Amino acid sequence: MAKNSKLTGNMLIAQSGGPTVVINQSLIGAVLEAKKHKEIKKIYGSLHGILGILNENFIDLGKESKATLEAVANTPSSALGSVRKKPTPEDCAKIFQVMQKYDVRYFFYIGGNDSAETTHIINEEARKAGYEFRCFHICKTIDNDLRENDHTPGFGSGAKFVASAFMGDNLDNRALPGVKINVVMGRHAGFLTAASALARVYPDDGPHLVYLPERPFDMDRFLADVKTVNEKYGRCVVAVSEGISDAEGTAIAAKFTKEVDAHGNVQLSGSGALGDLLADQVKAKLQIKRVRADTFGYLQRSFPGVVSAVDAKEARLAGQAAVKFANGGKFANGSTAIKRKPGKSYRTWIERTELKNVAKETRHMPDEFINAEGNNVTAAFIRYAAPIVGPLPPVGRFKGVKVKKIG
Amino acid sequence: MAKNSKLTGNMLIAQSGGPTVVINQSLIGAVLEAKKHKEIKKIYGSLHGILGILNENFIDLGKESKATLEAVANTPSSALGSVRKKPTPEDCAKIFQVMQKYDVRYFFYIGGNDSAETTHIINEEARKAGYEFRCFHICKTIDNDLRENDHTPGFGSGAKFVASAFMGDNLDNRALPGVKINVVMGRHAGFLTAASALARVYPDDGPHLVYLPERPFDMDRFLADVKTVNEKYGRCVVAVSEGISDAEGTAIAAKFTKEVDAHGNVQLSGSGALGDLLADQVKAKLQIKRVRADTFGYLQRSFPGVVSAVDAKEARLAGQAAVKFANGGKFANGSTAIKRKPGKSYRTWIERTELKNVAKETRHMPDEFINAEGNNVTAAFIRYAAPIVGPLPPVGRFKGVKVKKIG
Repeated sequence: MAKNSKLTGNMLIAQSGGPTVVINQSLIGAVLEAKKHKEIKKIYGSLHGILGILNENFIDLGKESKATLEAVANTPSSALGSVRKKPTPEDCAKIFQVMQKYDVRYFFYIGGNDSAETTHIINEEARKAGYEFRCFHICKTIDNDLRENDHTPGFGSGAKFVASAFMGDNLDNRALPGVKINVVMGRHAGFLTAASALARVYPDDGPHLVYLPERPFDMDRFLADVKTVNEKYGRCVVAVSEGISDAEGTAIAAKFTKEVDAHGNVQLSGSGALGDLLADQVKAKLQIKRVRADTFGYLQRSFPGVVSAVDAKEARLAGQAAVKFANGGKFANGSTAIKRKPGKSYRTWIERTELKNVAKETRHMPDEFINAEGNNVTAAFIRYAAPIVGPLPPVGRFKGVKVKKIG
Repeated sequence: MAKNSKLTGNMLIAQSGGPTVVINQSLIGAVLEAKKHKEIKKIYGSLHGILGILNENFIDLGKESKATLEAVANTPSSALGSVRKKPTPEDCAKIFQVMQKYDVRYFFYIGGNDSAETTHIINEEARKAGYEFRCFHICKTIDNDLRENDHTPGFGSGAKFVASAFMGDNLDNRALPGVKINVVMGRHAGFLTAASALARVYPDDGPHLVYLPERPFDMDRFLADVKTVNEKYGRCVVAVSEGISDAEGTAIAAKFTKEVDAHGNVQLSGSGALGDLLADQVKAKLQIKRVRADTFGYLQRSFPGVVSAVDAKEARLAGQAAVKFANGGKFANGSTAIKRKPGKSYRTWIERTELKNVAKETRHMPDEFINAEGNNVTAAFIRYAAPIVGPLPPVGRFKGVKVKKIG
């Protein structure tokens, strides 16, 4: 395919879907890169994704100082605001009116697979309308479930939060033994829940059991697993994905909520119902006295200061790469995908991929990352995830020389 | 009172109640100080508090390396294990048998007010039995509710976690507006919930409302408050203590649980019921669509890496001070209390106080820390808490120059 010609005009960038602690790295990476391209004139930021385009609610990112841009890059959540809105055909028509009116020739949308779908729809409409512009999706999601990507910006930091939380919670559970169930984000993909396993330092450390959406969840099997671990260690720490589903594919949590978003997803986060249900089952069926459940909730994607350095760097690079691809690259549209060299040493780069390859469908945990019993992760997963997450806080333990009892 | 004579014998130390991220600082502070006192021979650590004494389940802390001791000091949760057990008179008789058998002449118990009460009972029994020993409680609790203390070890780090969590969650809520309710630990004292207010950087930042156990919680009043804030900002972040109670003093959360611990406390943590209840009320009564609740749970007291440097230092000093008080001080027993110089500059020191002054009853938020409406904290609270918590992660925000709409 012929090299894409240079195109002069304004740029519009927006953020969509669930925020992460590094999504602003991608935003600022794109803005700083755009400033180097003389073809890109104004740099508009749309507030709250496509909602801001429909309402022509833009801010001028060219008027922000370098210091502010860097401060925002290191701030969690979506600085431009986010949205969960699927555009209708009427919305798309309106979006192009706005694009033309503001001479927007470069459009960048940072988000997950739903956002990639939105970008894809906008691009298709533009193509049909014969509107010449560059349209790129910038990969992002703590769920780590985008196809074409080895992993996604946001996952490393979310995973670092989850692993750190389990590290502390395992120590808490060791001090006051019982059964502790922690519910982790992840609708269809178990990567974030699996990251809990990175918390293990000593052989008896939790999480002792890990339940993922990739395997059907069976309550009796779960209770038997907890019983076995509790008998072995006198305690049990469990990681459960919010998206665990029964053999028919019905989310266990969905039995307790009716709320759905614009993309038809049932609301799973922001409620403690699943954790409480599982804790009640353990109490009632196993007669274990001390049973607690925590639902990590939105902290997983927004906690300031708990950031994977690798994740922050890659998020920045993804934003930069999108602008490079858009201006003078081979293609007028696409998505950024993180690729990784196979083998022991960690090396990654950003490639351009087709929008349709990333949109709609999600990626799941490969079989090699899940144990045969479906209640834990494998060493292959640890090798995969550890370099993305980076070092965790060091923890120590007494040698614990027993004092001989006096008879 | 005459200066306490030197007493030769072994030392026993234990941890009790809810763990914190700095409770091991106090443990290691005491152990390292004890090593300097020639009167103190063996240094025993009892596993799981008084349960370990009753079962003679000790480890020899004199056999731990300096490196291990320092690693443990920087590790969250109670390295010796913890317990929630109130000793019976029979337990106390057994405890002295064990003390005598192991020639324990120095006993240190790290914990909150329930643990201070236990220490007080043990000391009274020892006094009655004519058993000569030194018996000190070392202050600890993330609830910050010990009398005689300006603040307690564990609070600063717990507060740092809560403030950081609200900082991120406020940004998340700003990106995807709605009502967000976060439930924070604190049975009778609202200090930890109040610390959420430290998250505020910009005038419109949340938490916009703060509900504490010190003021009766009224559902209609709460709903009216949320409505007002939501109309003003288009969103609302709420901090709620798990211990909020109605005008009759019944905990709102207690209406959903029957579990009580050995000290007669209803179990409030480890369940999402209170947050879900409040969220359901907001959805139903205010017709607000996006309403979420998170319960921070055990992460608040165990999350590694989120530590207040001031808190860690003071926790270490409290452990050291207890041993100094015990050997050659004026008194044979007591508790460590953190005192603070009034005024702008932050200066603290550890004083010895009577066990009975710390035991049983708890301290509450003073009136000057709570606003007249009972739904927020005052500037006086911020001045009080900020130096204990220390610096929070910096966050930035766009200047946000609006792009003029094209007509």
